[in-house]
Amino acid sequence: MYHTIEQQDLDFFTALLQDRCKSDLDTREAYNHDHTEDLHFTPRVVLLPQNTQEVSEILAYCNSNNIPVTPAGARTGLSGGCLPIHGGVLLSSEKLNRIIEIDEKNAQVITEPAVITEALQNAVKEKGLFYPPDPASKGSCFIGGNIAENSGGPKAVKYGVTKDYVLNLEVVLPDGTIMWTGANVLKNATGYNLTQLVVGSEGTLAFVTKIVLKLIPHPTHTLLMLVPFYDAQQACEAVSAIFNAGITPSGLEFMEHNALKWSQAFSEDYSIEVKDNHAAHLLIEVDGFDPEQLFKECEGILAVLEQYQTDEILFAESEAQKNTLWSLRRKVGEAVKVQSVYKEEDTVVPRYQLPQLLATVKAIGHKYGFESVCYGHAGDGNLHVNIIKGNLSDTFWNEELTVAIRELFTEVIKMGGTISGEHGIGLVQKPYMDLAFSQTGLELMRGIKKVFDPNGILNPGKIF
Amino acid sequence: MYHTIEQQDLDFFTALLQDRCKSDLDTREAYNHDHTEDLHFTPRVVLLPQNTQEVSEILAYCNSNNIPVTPAGARTGLSGGCLPIHGGVLLSSEKLNRIIEIDEKNAQVITEPAVITEALQNAVKEKGLFYPPDPASKGSCFIGGNIAENSGGPKAVKYGVTKDYVLNLEVVLPDGTIMWTGANVLKNATGYNLTQLVVGSEGTLAFVTKIVLKLIPHPTHTLLMLVPFYDAQQACEAVSAIFNAGITPSGLEFMEHNALKWSQAFSEDYSIEVKDNHAAHLLIEVDGFDPEQLFKECEGILAVLEQYQTDEILFAESEAQKNTLWSLRRKVGEAVKVQSVYKEEDTVVPRYQLPQLLATVKAIGHKYGFESVCYGHAGDGNLHVNIIKGNLSDTFWNEELTVAIRELFTEVIKMGGTISGEHGIGLVQKPYMDLAFSQTGLELMRGIKKVFDPNGILNPGKIF
Repeated sequence: MYHTIEQQDLDFFTALLQDRCKSDLDTREAYNHDHTEDLHFTPRVVLLPQNTQEVSEILAYCNSNNIPVTPAGARTGLSGGCLPIHGGVLLSSEKLNRIIEIDEKNAQVITEPAVITEALQNAVKEKGLFYPPDPASKGSCFIGGNIAENSGGPKAVKYGVTKDYVLNLEVVLPDGTIMWTGANVLKNATGYNLTQLVVGSEGTLAFVTKIVLKLIPHPTHTLLMLVPFYDAQQACEAVSAIFNAGITPSGLEFMEHNALKWSQAFSEDYSIEVKDNHAAHLLIEVDGFDPEQLFKECEGILAVLEQYQTDEILFAESEAQKNTLWSLRRKVGEAVKVQSVYKEEDTVVPRYQLPQLLATVKAIGHKYGFESVCYGHAGDGNLHVNIIKGNLSDTFWNEELTVAIRELFTEVIKMGGTISGEHGIGLVQKPYMDLAFSQTGLELMRGIKKVFDPNGILNPGKIF
Repeated sequence: MYHTIEQQDLDFFTALLQDRCKSDLDTREAYNHDHTEDLHFTPRVVLLPQNTQEVSEILAYCNSNNIPVTPAGARTGLSGGCLPIHGGVLLSSEKLNRIIEIDEKNAQVITEPAVITEALQNAVKEKGLFYPPDPASKGSCFIGGNIAENSGGPKAVKYGVTKDYVLNLEVVLPDGTIMWTGANVLKNATGYNLTQLVVGSEGTLAFVTKIVLKLIPHPTHTLLMLVPFYDAQQACEAVSAIFNAGITPSGLEFMEHNALKWSQAFSEDYSIEVKDNHAAHLLIEVDGFDPEQLFKECEGILAVLEQYQTDEILFAESEAQKNTLWSLRRKVGEAVKVQSVYKEEDTVVPRYQLPQLLATVKAIGHKYGFESVCYGHAGDGNLHVNIIKGNLSDTFWNEELTVAIRELFTEVIKMGGTISGEHGIGLVQKPYMDLAFSQTGLELMRGIKKVFDPNGILNPGKIF
């Protein structure tokens, strides 16, 4: 169906990019995976353009020659979005790695896509500005990948997700045309929202080369507490109760017993005592500009928590202890990975349905015979369900489990939820899209894809 | 090009809707305008469906018979978006006027489109919840229209615009298919963002029949101040300075001298003294849950304002006085309308460019010979430019002025801005879309339109 890359194509890319065209096997294999399960697909060539013009020339060539192009960033994604399943070109953003301008006067930043999210956050923080979205992988993921996946993270509960900060994008369309999607403004009612359409489109509509983000004043203070519950259901119930008391934490994370235990083992950090009867923990952060105000908010949270059976609440006493607690939370994903082969489902429901979601996950696990470790952004109703392979057979893993996941997603959707909160659909969730959207919805998406990419060369085989 | 409605079509609509199919001239003329300039277009028939199924049957019939359909809400729009310029069907949402459910547990509301925005705000406020977007017309506009236009309002500066609160939409496509665009969740990375594509699409892609909105805790306290400046440029400069001091007001409105004077005359309310040497005013609100915190924020604002030459600052002393000040601000648009025929441009630039924008408006007015009254949401860089016809000739108004507006928009775009912040493009800004988007951008939009509405029956002749 697609043209197989030949020597003449490699010659074209080499003439354009010199040593930034890599067709040796070592490089190609280095780019054949992301952080999704144990999946590997090797591209025929890896291209590393260093400016928008080069991206444009690559795409125009591939579009004319029917060569599949898979955009990639830091390849930390969890849905296989940047896996080159048709071989072809792996188009890496990694040389587009400059912060172009921090516009303090307008509280905006203009950046290229391959800036590490945490580096971007630190650079704007030096100016007193805040870019809140902070996926667990913030120390290694690229801001461009965050835009492709509409990434979230713990701060989303108060500050929103990536899409809420993207004002404007410079993109290259599959035919090589370079365009801006919007304007550098906080409000925009000028035509269809192409910017928001590109955000979360997982590199299937266009390749993003410049990003204009809104920034906000950086909070000066945080307070952080870790709350052990004897009952995981109660932990989930407390989440809604906190919001219903009129409090909006800047982080409200849920971890099952094993999630925290495994993260401790992975981090070799046992400074926090996790007792056997701690079924789950909530990690709760408040932030702002006035310490007194934050103490009041914590008092409000404690008043809510009194209705539930909790063990002694740990208040982080230092920045170091805050970092320890957040690090344990962030490393759960990696910690699960070293324990066993696993599948991670990124379920999201309306917040109050969280206890019901957790119960459903466990009931389906019991029915089909799998263990799961659950954790995630409880304040958003976003629960990461890690299904553990352990001693389960490959047949079960590849066949029956699919049925179980369909059953789980069906229930999630009945609760008003959907199948991905922040990881995207990519390759691995694609078989379940019919649960989230009607045929008409999927046809609209395919139609939009065709408008942007009539030849289907850009990230083929993803989303649908 | 379109089929002209005949008796057999009216018979079909009457059989479906009985007396909610209105083809008498009085009704048709009552629906032939919105709040845009002095434009009138009379539909052939006005249809008032009362449920989604009826909307579906109407659209399916019109799609099969090539009858143009113009969706309309409260018809308070300022860009002519709901004017039936091809005659045909005026499809009014007004019988879809129920709040379906206020889901306190999840802080969401599910509503039909023809609920007046302020009524919706009041209903959720009774539960302690807040729906912030508040266009000046909030007492008469519909929430469905706000979604069509991606409306803003004074609160947008702190809380964002309509799009930031829309979680999910039930829509009817032009062929009559009923579908939901997303899920009732705070985070969603599941396929293309059809929800955000429909928001702000001005009724050209689908007819919205149900809306799921995110709500937040309602602030319990506000403080409001009116600040007179001797120099309008200084007022604009102060806007950015306030944000750069780390303060985010919940309202930051700019009014030129005449805007406030005319609103006083229109309202017959002279309780506020506006001196001849008050070139402009800023109306600044802070909100929150803790009065002490708000006093601190006001102190911070006053410290910033000390750098500028202001007359005595008025702090609203009572709820009644707050209402007076906000009412004066909200009525500027209507007040200008009774003074003269006018054109309103909805310019928006990055916030710090606001003084430059104001200077540009005045310079172009001087060059071409027109007067303007400027006011608007300065905190968002969103300035409403009201060009006053006064004694200008019709020839100037219809020809030369178009050249002047193009010049203004060209400068706006050079500043990183765009041609509509919150009013939409509709009919009257359509001629300027080539300034805001490249041909490629416009072709993408036309392509998306065709995916949703291949026969072009829904709100034809709008946006592009």
